[in-house]
Amino acid sequence: MNKGRKIPEVTIMRLSAYSRALEQMMSKGETVVSSLEIAEAVGVGSPQVRKDLAYFGAFGIRGLGYGIQDLYDRIAEITGTNKVWKVAIVGLGHLGGALVSYPGFLSRGFKVVGAFDVKDIGKRYRGLVIQDIRDFVQVAKENPFDLGIIVVPKDAAQEVADILVAGGVRAILNFAPVNLTVPVEVELKQVDLSMFLETLSYHMSQKTEK
Amino acid sequence: MNKGRKIPEVTIMRLSAYSRALEQMMSKGETVVSSLEIAEAVGVGSPQVRKDLAYFGAFGIRGLGYGIQDLYDRIAEITGTNKVWKVAIVGLGHLGGALVSYPGFLSRGFKVVGAFDVKDIGKRYRGLVIQDIRDFVQVAKENPFDLGIIVVPKDAAQEVADILVAGGVRAILNFAPVNLTVPVEVELKQVDLSMFLETLSYHMSQKTEK
Repeated sequence: MNKGRKIPEVTIMRLSAYSRALEQMMSKGETVVSSLEIAEAVGVGSPQVRKDLAYFGAFGIRGLGYGIQDLYDRIAEITGTNKVWKVAIVGLGHLGGALVSYPGFLSRGFKVVGAFDVKDIGKRYRGLVIQDIRDFVQVAKENPFDLGIIVVPKDAAQEVADILVAGGVRAILNFAPVNLTVPVEVELKQVDLSMFLETLSYHMSQKTEK
Repeated sequence: MNKGRKIPEVTIMRLSAYSRALEQMMSKGETVVSSLEIAEAVGVGSPQVRKDLAYFGAFGIRGLGYGIQDLYDRIAEITGTNKVWKVAIVGLGHLGGALVSYPGFLSRGFKVVGAFDVKDIGKRYRGLVIQDIRDFVQVAKENPFDLGIIVVPKDAAQEVADILVAGGVRAILNFAPVNLTVPVEVELKQVDLSMFLETLSYHMSQKTEK
């Protein structure tokens, strides 16, 4: 499935949205869905839905649609959310603390198994013992992490990223409002709330001028 | 400035990144910057930087570059972050609580002036008194909000969005992992952590297969 074909990131993001819509449908006991219904739930056109699903060879049965569970499982296989990814969170401030208990992690195959900080070392936090970030490489040698999440002040973020890379993480999700540099083989995603705020601010300004 | 010309959202997002890079430069006492330096700080090409800045008529002086403060102020004017936008946060759970104290709000012109929930009504939270979300429309009549931030469980999110719209907010930032429906005149942004997680998961899966 999908041998050697790289799926564009925008498609993956839409697959993620489809997957969420399918979850909602399953929770209502529905079993079959049309591309039009998926399209309406997510807010894209139904030709787009059919095109995206065709990427991995999922063709609905004409006049019948897609089996919801089957489609859900195939998307999970593509996006890798049927695996379990081990997560280390660095920075147990307000936001880091909130993330540890984020219910969306587990349903997306992510399990927070490590918590690191420079203070409160040894303190228990939601079943995790806070460890010293300076021990990260050593800890990771015994129990490797797949993903590191950075939730530290921006001045410390690059240093933490370097430590995570040295400890062998394969991906980094950065919440600090600063541009980080990592080797190309490490996947980096920036969750920049400031950027969301500024696009909203721009749109509100435009409306004020009208 | 920028009369009747709508700047594409991707440009606004890059302007936001430039603005953050300029802040970092100002904090180091620098006063003049070249498009190449901005490009390197943000990780885009310098022709892209010059093209983006040309949108609002900011042409650097050949061989000298841009005045950092001047450029920063012009970007703030474009993105509207030189105004003060009044924010209501709905849902004071872990993430909502973390957002109330998010330092990036104020520097982007956003001020959290209202906190709403269905429980803990009357309790003080970081200088704010938690109000009943069912009173939102009434409260907003006296002191209107520009932006509503939704940080409630997904099953309650649409209902909260309807209340915010009824109360006259002009934009909504939604953290609940669910697709919301709002009138076209209300700007809606979805901060979907699941989506970030799934794109990371996809990239990690691809690497595993290699």
